[in-house]
Amino acid sequence: MNRIHGSSIIFGEPPCIIANSATVGKKEHEGPLGASFRYFHENELCGEKTFEQAESRLQRETVLNALAEAELKAESVDCIFGGDLLNQCVGSSYGLRELGIPFLGTYGACSTMALSLTEAAVFVSSGAARNAAAVTSSHFCSAERQFRFPLEYGNQRTPLSQWTVTAAGCAVVSGVRSEGCPVITSATVGRICDLGVTDINNMGAAMAPAAADTVERLLRDTGTAPSDYGLILTGDLGFTGSELMLCLLEERGIRLNEVHNDCGKMIFDRNRQDVHSGGSGCGCSAAVLCGHVLEELKQGRCRRLLFCATGALMSPTTVFQGESIPAIAHALCIEMQG
Amino acid sequence: MNRIHGSSIIFGEPPCIIANSATVGKKEHEGPLGASFRYFHENELCGEKTFEQAESRLQRETVLNALAEAELKAESVDCIFGGDLLNQCVGSSYGLRELGIPFLGTYGACSTMALSLTEAAVFVSSGAARNAAAVTSSHFCSAERQFRFPLEYGNQRTPLSQWTVTAAGCAVVSGVRSEGCPVITSATVGRICDLGVTDINNMGAAMAPAAADTVERLLRDTGTAPSDYGLILTGDLGFTGSELMLCLLEERGIRLNEVHNDCGKMIFDRNRQDVHSGGSGCGCSAAVLCGHVLEELKQGRCRRLLFCATGALMSPTTVFQGESIPAIAHALCIEMQG
Repeated sequence: MNRIHGSSIIFGEPPCIIANSATVGKKEHEGPLGASFRYFHENELCGEKTFEQAESRLQRETVLNALAEAELKAESVDCIFGGDLLNQCVGSSYGLRELGIPFLGTYGACSTMALSLTEAAVFVSSGAARNAAAVTSSHFCSAERQFRFPLEYGNQRTPLSQWTVTAAGCAVVSGVRSEGCPVITSATVGRICDLGVTDINNMGAAMAPAAADTVERLLRDTGTAPSDYGLILTGDLGFTGSELMLCLLEERGIRLNEVHNDCGKMIFDRNRQDVHSGGSGCGCSAAVLCGHVLEELKQGRCRRLLFCATGALMSPTTVFQGESIPAIAHALCIEMQG
Repeated sequence: MNRIHGSSIIFGEPPCIIANSATVGKKEHEGPLGASFRYFHENELCGEKTFEQAESRLQRETVLNALAEAELKAESVDCIFGGDLLNQCVGSSYGLRELGIPFLGTYGACSTMALSLTEAAVFVSSGAARNAAAVTSSHFCSAERQFRFPLEYGNQRTPLSQWTVTAAGCAVVSGVRSEGCPVITSATVGRICDLGVTDINNMGAAMAPAAADTVERLLRDTGTAPSDYGLILTGDLGFTGSELMLCLLEERGIRLNEVHNDCGKMIFDRNRQDVHSGGSGCGCSAAVLCGHVLEELKQGRCRRLLFCATGALMSPTTVFQGESIPAIAHALCIEMQG
């Protein structure tokens, strides 16, 4: 049985991440983590006719690659948790419809990887699934035209804006431990935080308080300190949001600086790739986690990871209506044991 | 511990629905179930400035009413599962942001009530939550302008179309049994079904195959027959979709007719209220379940309920791109015990 301590879930028998995979686009493959990304597409349409179909394809391919790594057929996966940024989460529903796996749609904006992974872990730990997958994606082109401007317009990007990553990431969780695979020992579900930020081009600022709240709760509830982690990984606060979160935590006496990094900072080279405040999008933290960081754990370069994915929960409609931007962050502690 | 039988979740210690509440709009209150709906709004703006804010308010009020019924403060709820039809699920994120309850966003279109209730039940049964809430909503006016036409345009509705319900429903699930309250004994997570329906004005046809698939799996996996249920409740297939689902199941030797009803058929009076094929929207099955049917169970008029909520997973963008409509249905068995 699991238990709640404070407001975090402590897993009685930590579920195991038996496989993980990521697929990225060209720009992401040319970034600093390019060598970690085994699967990538040179063309933004990924062989499809629309950007939305391309995003769906990214998800489907990534799930199939993860299942192949786990040596599982789709029939052996009891459920899959997936979601994305597109209206009505169509990246997932069209991407996964052929697979026949029972599907639970999630929405957490760019926090979706941590959300779906938490749910997969709870389902597996409860016996409600033997194997469960968690997947998410984003695509620069489908996001730009939905949230910002048509690409053809060639709009100028503001200095604090972030660049939506073209990528998908998938992790497969099992109740049976597999040697050399990391386990999920605890999880903290995010609370909606809204400090009144209304600048749609500065998502990092909107999300930083949510990240600080969740990281603080996870550390307190698990009785751990930042130094107990090889890496505290947020995503995607970018450069601006990361600084703000570190400040907020420092005010509360928690100093992460030595062990902190952010998926939005890691996936692009800011000087070379013109992404302003870094990467964003559900696919950013999903690809950095599933394509790079989990491999670092398996290869012994990090023993314990705090993964905290962040999302901004507004829509273009609420922004036009003058609402501020609510944000959320979900976190998991993932570690190598034994 | 729970277990998987076939592809359904069988709860080892069935979680209990300790409270349920619904809030509806004027048209729904004037419908055949009006007397069951204790909370309703006369005005479609519910005292807010926009339809989206009105929908958020419906969710928030409904959660607070359910918590009051459960005699729980928000701090005692470990997590809430919520989602809606609005782009980026803003009905939930803005509706619930003030409550401070850890929030897991769900997306299942009109199947969201069954999806969020399944997740709440699994979290509670695993010890990952002591009390968990499940909520969803829809609003005729916010849905019309997002999915169809501006209301001012006064478009003609086609004969097979359904009317989006203005309502929210919330259920609170606990690991501790409460006398006189129903329990959730099993759940079947839906698979995405797409038989190629492209008529956006006939959602019932798109969703019927998904409902048939899920109902068939739940009956088979739990070893039950339709006659074991006081009510098999789908939502929201409406008149057209219900007939199609009954045909599909009859072809497979399963005859539901005597015990079947559909939330979309129940909530409006087709002859008097001009709703064509019936009600739809996340709030339809949520309000019929949480405002009416769960009360029927508590009052002994039904001992065992199969609740199967259905959703169509397209978006306006995918429809414009010529895609067919994928659909999903999630089901739970809810019963009075002891």
